[in-house]
Formats: sequence, structure tokens, C-alpha cells
Amino acid sequence: MTTVTRIIGIDPGLRRTGWGVIDSLGNSVRFVASGSVTSDGDMDLASRLVQIHDGLDAVLHQYQPDEAAIEQTFVNKDAGATLKLGQARGVALLAPARRGLPVAEYAPNAVKKAIVGAGHAEKGQIRVMVKVLMPKATFESDDAADALAIALTHAHHRGSVVGRLAKLAAG
Amino acid sequence: MTTVTRIIGIDPGLRRTGWGVIDSLGNSVRFVASGSVTSDGDMDLASRLVQIHDGLDAVLHQYQPDEAAIEQTFVNKDAGATLKLGQARGVALLAPARRGLPVAEYAPNAVKKAIVGAGHAEKGQIRVMVKVLMPKATFESDDAADALAIALTHAHHRGSVVGRLAKLAAG
Repeated sequence: MTTVTRIIGIDPGLRRTGWGVIDSLGNSVRFVASGSVTSDGDMDLASRLVQIHDGLDAVLHQYQPDEAAIEQTFVNKDAGATLKLGQARGVALLAPARRGLPVAEYAPNAVKKAIVGAGHAEKGQIRVMVKVLMPKATFESDDAADALAIALTHAHHRGSVVGRLAKLAAG
Repeated sequence: MTTVTRIIGIDPGLRRTGWGVIDSLGNSVRFVASGSVTSDGDMDLASRLVQIHDGLDAVLHQYQPDEAAIEQTFVNKDAGATLKLGQARGVALLAPARRGLPVAEYAPNAVKKAIVGAGHAEKGQIRVMVKVLMPKATFESDDAADALAIALTHAHHRGSVVGRLAKLAAG
């Protein structure tokens, strides 16, 4: 018997955190939902982090994923931006972990390689491949598309879509 | 009528997050408790962030502070360290904010200036002044002492210990 594993991918950011939920079953993947959680730039930092946490927690409650995946943050040259991103990322890691989900981390190059077949893919290529792999996928924002790519990368590393991804990359 | 305001100061870190609780009443401050929450370096990042969150949340539950204060992180030259600290800091900001506490942020220099009277004070001087201001204060670690200094800084900025700090700084 093959069981469905529901995966949530998260692309963290202080202003906007993208999320994408997919079902992974054997060698196939199925789009479930995607979206983003935004925080109000006029509010203080702690309140914005609560908005991110509570928004993600509502998504986790609604879709009940089994596993989570998050991109390993690209370490920026700008220390202030790195710190901001780190704070949002801490909260984005915390939300699924508090619900007992295992949280996998993937380097940006691993995501590109899993989805496009090369570690130096452009943003646009990732979006096209997300659509090829899951024609029914919709995403309102770049962050939601990136989050779906992260979820697909996790499915790939779990072995569920290896064959299909390899075939697509070769073709 | 003067009311007591209970303040928790937090010094965030991924390995060890210090906390210190004080009561601020008119021009006086009183030590309540201090300690630190540690995370297990052998665990994955998400689980460590849960340890920090849940540890702080237990402290918040036990001591029921009215307001929180946290040091504005010194932006390190090392981007990897900045990211790690940012993640712990995000969780340390989230825990009190989720309980509805206002969370104030203070730059390291503001803490030094409030406690010692100069922005370039050494670590040791801060500890001595924490003991002068609150003779009954105990702290098991540097992080706990720093957290108490942050709580005192917040009391100072709220106006409650201005006179006393100014007198001590001048004397």
C-alpha cells in the first residue's frame, strides 16, 4: 500500500512568507494549495512575527501536512537584511516544529537542482517546472511558487518523484 | 497609587537564551528571578527553536510579566552567526508577543548607558551595576545577568529608576 504524504514548503520572509502544500504519492505529486502570509510593515517587529506565526499556524491547521520543508537562507552580504530574514525564518521553522512536524532544510542550489536539474537555474525556470510537474498549481506570488518548489524538492529527496523529475530534466 | 510593573528582559542566543525578571515600582526596582533556557546542539534547528520558545513560554507563564525588553542584536561580521542569532531572536520576540506583552528593543549601547552611565562599558561593569541596583539579584550565567541589565534598561526608560540610576552614575 502506498500512502499519501502531505508536504508543506515554506519560503520565509519578514514582509511576506510563501507557503505551498502538495501531496506526494508514490511517484506522483499533486498540488493542494499555496499562498502567502504577510506582515504589516507599520507594526513593531514582535507583532509582525506574531502575524507570520499565527498565519502559518492557521495554514498548518487547515491543511494538516505531515512534513515541512524550508529553504536554507541565502546568507546576504547585508547583515541587517540577514538578521531580519533570520528572525522571520526562526518563526517559520518554529510553527511546524511546534506541531510536531519534521522540518527539512534545503539549500537554494538543491531546490534548483531538484526542480530544473541544474544548480544555477533562473527564478523563471523554477516556476515553469512547478507548472510542468503540477499543471493544476496556482500561485499568487513568487514566494508561493518558491514554496511549492521547496515542497517538490522535499518530495524528490524522499524518493517519491525522482523518476519523473529525472525524466523531465533529461527530456 | 503606584502600581508595580513586572518586566522580563531577554538576551537571545541559539545555544543559551538568558532571562531576568524584575519588579519596577515608582523609583525602585526589585529582583524577582533570572535564569537561562538552553537548546540541545545535537538536535536539528527547528527542534532547538521549539526548546527556546517553550522554555521562555514556561518562564512567562510562571512569572506573568507585564512587559518585555530585548536587546537589539549586534550585527556580527559573520553572516552565518548573524542568521543563527536572528532565528533565536525571532523566537525570543515571538514568545512574549504571543502572550500579548509589549516588547521593547534596546541597542547594546542604550543598555550600557542606562546601567553604567556610559555607552562603552565593559561586560564586568554591567554585572557590578546590576548587583548595586539590586543587591539580591543572583544570576547563574552571563546571559542571565545581561537579561537583567536589559530589564533594568526598560525600567529606566519607563522612568521608574531614572533618578536612582542618574545618582549612581554621577556618584
